[in-house]
Amino acid sequence: MSSVDLNADLGEGFGVWALGDDDAMLDIVTSANVACGFHAGDPATLRRVCEAAAARGVRIGAQVSYRDLAGFGRRFIDVSSEDLIADVMYQIGALSALAAAAGSSVSYVKPHGALYNAVVTNRLQAHALAAAVHAVDPALPVLGLAGSVFFGAAEELGLRTVPEAFADRAYRPDGRLVSRRERNSVLHDVDEIAERVISMVSRGRVHAVDGSTIPITVESVCVHGDSPGAVQIATAVRKRLVAEGVTLASFS
Amino acid sequence: MSSVDLNADLGEGFGVWALGDDDAMLDIVTSANVACGFHAGDPATLRRVCEAAAARGVRIGAQVSYRDLAGFGRRFIDVSSEDLIADVMYQIGALSALAAAAGSSVSYVKPHGALYNAVVTNRLQAHALAAAVHAVDPALPVLGLAGSVFFGAAEELGLRTVPEAFADRAYRPDGRLVSRRERNSVLHDVDEIAERVISMVSRGRVHAVDGSTIPITVESVCVHGDSPGAVQIATAVRKRLVAEGVTLASFS
Amino acid sequence: MSSVDLNADLGEGFGVWALGDDDAMLDIVTSANVACGFHAGDPATLRRVCEAAAARGVRIGAQVSYRDLAGFGRRFIDVSSEDLIADVMYQIGALSALAAAAGSSVSYVKPHGALYNAVVTNRLQAHALAAAVHAVDPALPVLGLAGSVFFGAAEELGLRTVPEAFADRAYRPDGRLVSRRERNSVLHDVDEIAERVISMVSRGRVHAVDGSTIPITVESVCVHGDSPGAVQIATAVRKRLVAEGVTLASFS
Amino acid sequence: MSSVDLNADLGEGFGVWALGDDDAMLDIVTSANVACGFHAGDPATLRRVCEAAAARGVRIGAQVSYRDLAGFGRRFIDVSSEDLIADVMYQIGALSALAAAAGSSVSYVKPHGALYNAVVTNRLQAHALAAAVHAVDPALPVLGLAGSVFFGAAEELGLRTVPEAFADRAYRPDGRLVSRRERNSVLHDVDEIAERVISMVSRGRVHAVDGSTIPITVESVCVHGDSPGAVQIATAVRKRLVAEGVTLASFS
Repeated sequence: MSSVDLNADLGEGFGVWALGDDDAMLDIVTSANVACGFHAGDPATLRRVCEAAAARGVRIGAQVSYRDLAGFGRRFIDVSSEDLIADVMYQIGALSALAAAAGSSVSYVKPHGALYNAVVTNRLQAHALAAAVHAVDPALPVLGLAGSVFFGAAEELGLRTVPEAFADRAYRPDGRLVSRRERNSVLHDVDEIAERVISMVSRGRVHAVDGSTIPITVESVCVHGDSPGAVQIATAVRKRLVAEGVTLASFS
Repeated sequence: MSSVDLNADLGEGFGVWALGDDDAMLDIVTSANVACGFHAGDPATLRRVCEAAAARGVRIGAQVSYRDLAGFGRRFIDVSSEDLIADVMYQIGALSALAAAAGSSVSYVKPHGALYNAVVTNRLQAHALAAAVHAVDPALPVLGLAGSVFFGAAEELGLRTVPEAFADRAYRPDGRLVSRRERNSVLHDVDEIAERVISMVSRGRVHAVDGSTIPITVESVCVHGDSPGAVQIATAVRKRLVAEGVTLASFS
Repeated sequence: MSSVDLNADLGEGFGVWALGDDDAMLDIVTSANVACGFHAGDPATLRRVCEAAAARGVRIGAQVSYRDLAGFGRRFIDVSSEDLIADVMYQIGALSALAAAAGSSVSYVKPHGALYNAVVTNRLQAHALAAAVHAVDPALPVLGLAGSVFFGAAEELGLRTVPEAFADRAYRPDGRLVSRRERNSVLHDVDEIAERVISMVSRGRVHAVDGSTIPITVESVCVHGDSPGAVQIATAVRKRLVAEGVTLASFS
Repeated sequence: MSSVDLNADLGEGFGVWALGDDDAMLDIVTSANVACGFHAGDPATLRRVCEAAAARGVRIGAQVSYRDLAGFGRRFIDVSSEDLIADVMYQIGALSALAAAAGSSVSYVKPHGALYNAVVTNRLQAHALAAAVHAVDPALPVLGLAGSVFFGAAEELGLRTVPEAFADRAYRPDGRLVSRRERNSVLHDVDEIAERVISMVSRGRVHAVDGSTIPITVESVCVHGDSPGAVQIATAVRKRLVAEGVTLASFS
């Protein structure tokens, strides 16, 4: 692969509370998963991030979530299909107005946190999420995990699915992520992370936690925006990709 | 005047809590001021109201508010211009996605509650509100009070302003509404209300509380959707207008 | 049994939105499960209900919930033990201040909605809930389902457990409630409901949905406060109990 | 004066979002104004701060606020007296349960942000705030601005009022604070701040912005917990007071 997208979660402050360094990350990534107010992101923050992304030509995606500011969208909520569909449509629409006013647009959708994890296997929520995206705009691609129930539901509806890999997360032999509750679920060594990304992007392979090599399909690489060293890791990944001759470009 | 618009506030429940009879009111009005989630209106409720409005050919307006579920948007909040602009853009965008999916669109904006009252005189908030509407779509008309600072700010930006009259509210000699905190601020007699509306719409005049007759410009008449007898009053107003040969039609 | 408690969920409005007829129900029940602001209940509403309950000598219980106004606490949330403990302590404390100022006190705790259902089987949340009550006051009884994991956890900590029965809900042969998603989960016939309550209270037996008779331990009977006919059903239950010579009295 | 209290705002994170270094500040101050969840402070954070304060013998105060997470309580809200009273009682009660479980108690009340500023002059809100504190516990002192309408209302009800001075804020000749919107409203020089505190505490005088010397009554000095250099400034103030022979001790 000679081209890949680099995405990160941005706009995740709320009011007086900041999280991560949005401006620094926007100089690195090609796609910004911008929060939509349900797990993070007050409208003024979202507007600034949309303007900053548009000014740099970084694509804007709607990072949709459960309604859960207190839990930052990291807690599974057994929300009904009807509510989830409307909640997701509402969030995409809200961000769309801010993105459009900034001269850009929402060009993809990515679920956040516990919703991301739920729709890997939860049929009801996976179908609701896909239906919501489709109802807003059938031309919107969705960013997520290859092989997830969500991708199946999205493809049934004719949505384009964009599989992503995580730069700093350990993989199980079955291609799933090692849970954050386990030791060694997150990688911290900058060089190791950069090397892994090259392997995933150029060779379609990654080492799983048991030492085996597994295949992986990657159109976008997710780098974290709020962890300690986030900017340093993202910079290293970007430099290494460029050094290997990989073009960094949005998938959309 | 041979044609006038009839508007009401709808979609003002939240989750398990209902308010007013949206379906009944949608059979009467020509424009629905649909809540946007900040003072009322969970997304699933808003989606249903948008679908019901679209099915009847009733126009959908974004009824934007301060962020204040606990106060139903009825408490003045000294919000900064930056926050108010983004909050309003966010709300219009959110409702737009739901309206569009229902086959309709947001075709105007009306401020709610304490924000409605604030922008009659508060320059900062009036300009922020107008700027927000303009940033989302300069072709969106705004519904409000003739002579308000808000209308001045909107007209400066080239927005179309649509003056409304209230069917059941008492007017002061200067054209302002009598405060709800005063006795006799709200009219309850169905026939008297219908008669007033005819006077306002057909003759451009209304009796103020001091008995004087004042001029009033009306392109839309606001009927309340949640007060006791709301449906009965709205029905009476509609019937009387039709009987007088006035066409009921959206202003947009 | 010659004495039983009658409890209902109250204070479940929020701001402008009302739910049920609190005053009417307070004339019927002996224990009021008052919302604590997380699924319903703005502080001014809670204060009024506490004052009305205190004036009638009705006991006040803290009806604690997940933080979920939009879902009325009816959606399971996978909240951490640490958060659930603090959330519950916070709610009990908040209501305690309002109850104390009304000349009463919080004299028991009852989980609401999805939390009620979760702690029947979810060990983590059941233990967190019990730990929270114990941390606030080890002398506080808890109201809930006999045989639940929650009751086991509460008894381990030395909390008094008060088993309740539902006047209008169908029971499975194993003593659990028939899910609300199934037909016939809720009874509507006033006389049938009153007759069931007599059977449960006086004879410790109830007919399950399969026609079998199962044993049931009841120190309190829950009547619903917000369903259509709620006041009528609660009145019938009370009258029938009194007619059978059962004293209605709080368990605390 | 040979003894003074040192207070700071703490517990002002929310969920994933942190603000300030609570642990470092708790090693410096004698009174912790702990947020109560309405402008900041999720229950788990509040519980940890209460435990950390109790472990160090730092007094816990309830830092009550308007309900405004998005605005961090810094925006005036025209809340009714009835709502403000109940909101404040609710917050004090919630924090009380967490403080009591930590082996401490809420030993005073201080308004936060825009509410602090409002009750300097707003009679309705000042009286509501005082009434709320009195309703919860007439023995609770209130921390605030000498000469404020709030202090007058509190004293009418028999509440003890504790006047505080701000270590790093500029004063007007009339004893009010220079608005944060003006230049030079906040002092940044560590030595100058420490020197001012000595002047205020030992000599009851402070230089106003016009160069005049004005009298000031101080039982507690407020140091900020979340500004850049907060810990450094607070440490310098504490060291200087100790060096001058002033005992640092809670007022309660």
